[in-house]
Amino acid sequence: MDASTRTRILSAVDDLFEVETQFLSELTAHPSTRGNEQSAQDFMAKELAERGMDVDRWQIDVNDICDMPGFSPVIGNYEDAVNVVGSHRSATGKGRSLILNGHIDVVPEGPLDMWDTPPFEPRVDDGWMYGRGAGDMKAGLASNLFALDALRACGMQPAADVFFQSVVEEECTGNGALACLQRGYRADAALIPEPFAESLVTAQLGVIWFQVHLKGLPTHVAYAGSGSNAIEAAIPLIAALHEMEHRWNAPERRHADYAHHDHALNLNVGKFQGGDWASSVPAWCVFDVRMGLFPGQDIETAKEEIEAVLRQAAREHAFLRNNTPEIVYHGFHAEGYALSQDTSARAGQAIGALEGAHQAVTDTTLDKAAITATTDARFFGLYADTPALVYGPKAEAIHGFNERVDLDSVRRVTQTTALFIADWCGLEPAG
Amino acid sequence: MDASTRTRILSAVDDLFEVETQFLSELTAHPSTRGNEQSAQDFMAKELAERGMDVDRWQIDVNDICDMPGFSPVIGNYEDAVNVVGSHRSATGKGRSLILNGHIDVVPEGPLDMWDTPPFEPRVDDGWMYGRGAGDMKAGLASNLFALDALRACGMQPAADVFFQSVVEEECTGNGALACLQRGYRADAALIPEPFAESLVTAQLGVIWFQVHLKGLPTHVAYAGSGSNAIEAAIPLIAALHEMEHRWNAPERRHADYAHHDHALNLNVGKFQGGDWASSVPAWCVFDVRMGLFPGQDIETAKEEIEAVLRQAAREHAFLRNNTPEIVYHGFHAEGYALSQDTSARAGQAIGALEGAHQAVTDTTLDKAAITATTDARFFGLYADTPALVYGPKAEAIHGFNERVDLDSVRRVTQTTALFIADWCGLEPAG
Repeated sequence: MDASTRTRILSAVDDLFEVETQFLSELTAHPSTRGNEQSAQDFMAKELAERGMDVDRWQIDVNDICDMPGFSPVIGNYEDAVNVVGSHRSATGKGRSLILNGHIDVVPEGPLDMWDTPPFEPRVDDGWMYGRGAGDMKAGLASNLFALDALRACGMQPAADVFFQSVVEEECTGNGALACLQRGYRADAALIPEPFAESLVTAQLGVIWFQVHLKGLPTHVAYAGSGSNAIEAAIPLIAALHEMEHRWNAPERRHADYAHHDHALNLNVGKFQGGDWASSVPAWCVFDVRMGLFPGQDIETAKEEIEAVLRQAAREHAFLRNNTPEIVYHGFHAEGYALSQDTSARAGQAIGALEGAHQAVTDTTLDKAAITATTDARFFGLYADTPALVYGPKAEAIHGFNERVDLDSVRRVTQTTALFIADWCGLEPAG
Repeated sequence: MDASTRTRILSAVDDLFEVETQFLSELTAHPSTRGNEQSAQDFMAKELAERGMDVDRWQIDVNDICDMPGFSPVIGNYEDAVNVVGSHRSATGKGRSLILNGHIDVVPEGPLDMWDTPPFEPRVDDGWMYGRGAGDMKAGLASNLFALDALRACGMQPAADVFFQSVVEEECTGNGALACLQRGYRADAALIPEPFAESLVTAQLGVIWFQVHLKGLPTHVAYAGSGSNAIEAAIPLIAALHEMEHRWNAPERRHADYAHHDHALNLNVGKFQGGDWASSVPAWCVFDVRMGLFPGQDIETAKEEIEAVLRQAAREHAFLRNNTPEIVYHGFHAEGYALSQDTSARAGQAIGALEGAHQAVTDTTLDKAAITATTDARFFGLYADTPALVYGPKAEAIHGFNERVDLDSVRRVTQTTALFIADWCGLEPAG
């Protein structure tokens, strides 16, 4: 790509950025928590169709994917789980194909009174856009889309097929991205602009979710001594899980990419419910746990250890000894993934293309990072032999209150993405 | 009362007991958890009216009672809180008046799968009736009603005014009984057939309910170290509350009636809710606590100590130190009450009358017990100078699963109640 083409592309992103910001605001206003993604997906499908892409909008069928590697167990059906993919077909097909992936689902907003302004009424203040999902990761869907728009504004389009994916379920299972694999979408590389501050993610953790169900022996609290409090019975079990977390983070168990990270694997008790009445000894509780895994750590082995830890802790509890905790898996069964271990030429070329684009936009060397979360990158990298680059804008308070994304960073990522597409796919005149 | 009258009354209870059992079954089938008492109260009002009583059915107005001693704070209004009182007016008025009190509200049934049969489909098996509320305390409403029926079946009625009260809110505030006081109902004694196995309750504890609201610092769990888990922050606070519970039960702090009870005051974490998402560090939790108090223990002082304990525990927590727990009171602000300390002649006479009736029915001496719960007796004893006798049938698993009441015990209590009414109020020909 010559310097003048590059300059025209960067300028086109700048010129379109007000429209991109407006698009991001409109997308963020859709409260696309799990099960409520339809209106946001309708919006995405309309935007893709307006750009002349072939739009594939389908409801995920668990039966289609449940035997595939990488599937995570779910509860219930997927009647409300809809993926959208827009396909750009190149006229020349001379370049390398690309998947531009982003997830449309956002995590729950939590108590409204902890937000300064309503989570689904995005606002811009001092260069940041605030709103649930603005950073994680609707800004990434915006940068993917407007990178293509910028090329088109220059009279060009990718000289290879590009599949624009807007998927559900990234925040709990990844089954949305998996369903795109099942549907047959493949390319020479994938780009996922998750909000990791313009660094390239070289490794990501695995994640497992499990629910622990405990019973108690309910009585009137007047006779509390003869009952067993299911809520308080959880306390030693949680302590035992944290001891396991400590063991798993020990230096000798760490993956090479996390060797210098003291606490990469976090165990989180994210939800807890139990009991019905202050004056009744509670008969039940359920708590939801998220635990991280290193790349290469086997999920079935991890589950066995988790179960053994809970069983052992239960054995030391007078009531649980004979009323074993029930462990229910639904949600992430996600393996870790390390792009750093992909030694293929294609991976090296993709990383090189991104490094070049990033350098051209920011005049800095591309930072690389091993992250302590998971992303949908694992599906491409582990199950489709496709190098997956996770590279997106800077955001703060993702999963928290007053989540926000740095708009200048979104603009730069859009520019980098446009240059990356131009390099990776090549360019041809817009059709 | 001569021996033949006594025998006729006892036989009348026996003759009516099949009808009484049917009545109890029908009453238990009404799922009268808090807020859902209306159908049960309609049923009670109809039964009382059919017996010729004047029926007073009214909605409790918080404004009428909120400044009265014994009031417990509530959340929301009382649009669904309805009391029913049936008044029997004596023709001669020569005896001592009586309040027959029982509560219509039942505690939540909890998870249905922990019941052998549905909680609101009462059944009789081997002499027990099973169902939520069968024991606590619809059997007591039945024994009150059928004691009067037995007298009428003998052609007699109480020779003094009798107020039959079916009240709401016993299980959470006592504001139903309080509203009867506010409404002007007074008598020379009160009988409350709570299910304490045919023993007379000589002392009952106070009870306080409070909710603890904690905040956390939510983040994506990938950065859990930078957040603060609101659910886990509760653990040291609960531990500190149990230390307080231990101190309050110390021998030197015990009320005389509980001197030999090692653990009369129970602290119960009865309900816990927190967090929204397994992979978000939870931003909030709320837990509900019930704590017992000895008779004479001042509620305001108790609240101050509870608050100080929670404040101190919060000071030792990195995040809560600057994000103080919020303590919300709604539900019981109940003082303890000891009938044993009522040295009035009237109390002595009422106890004597019950002792005589119990002896006549069971051929045993009346057992007396200090209980580790509260009842509505406190309103009559503490705030209306009225001795309140708590004496009812044997029940098991109250507030638990497969709650059940011993029908033979219900029959005996009905007989004892009928003889007690005959003695206390005297008899006159049925009107």
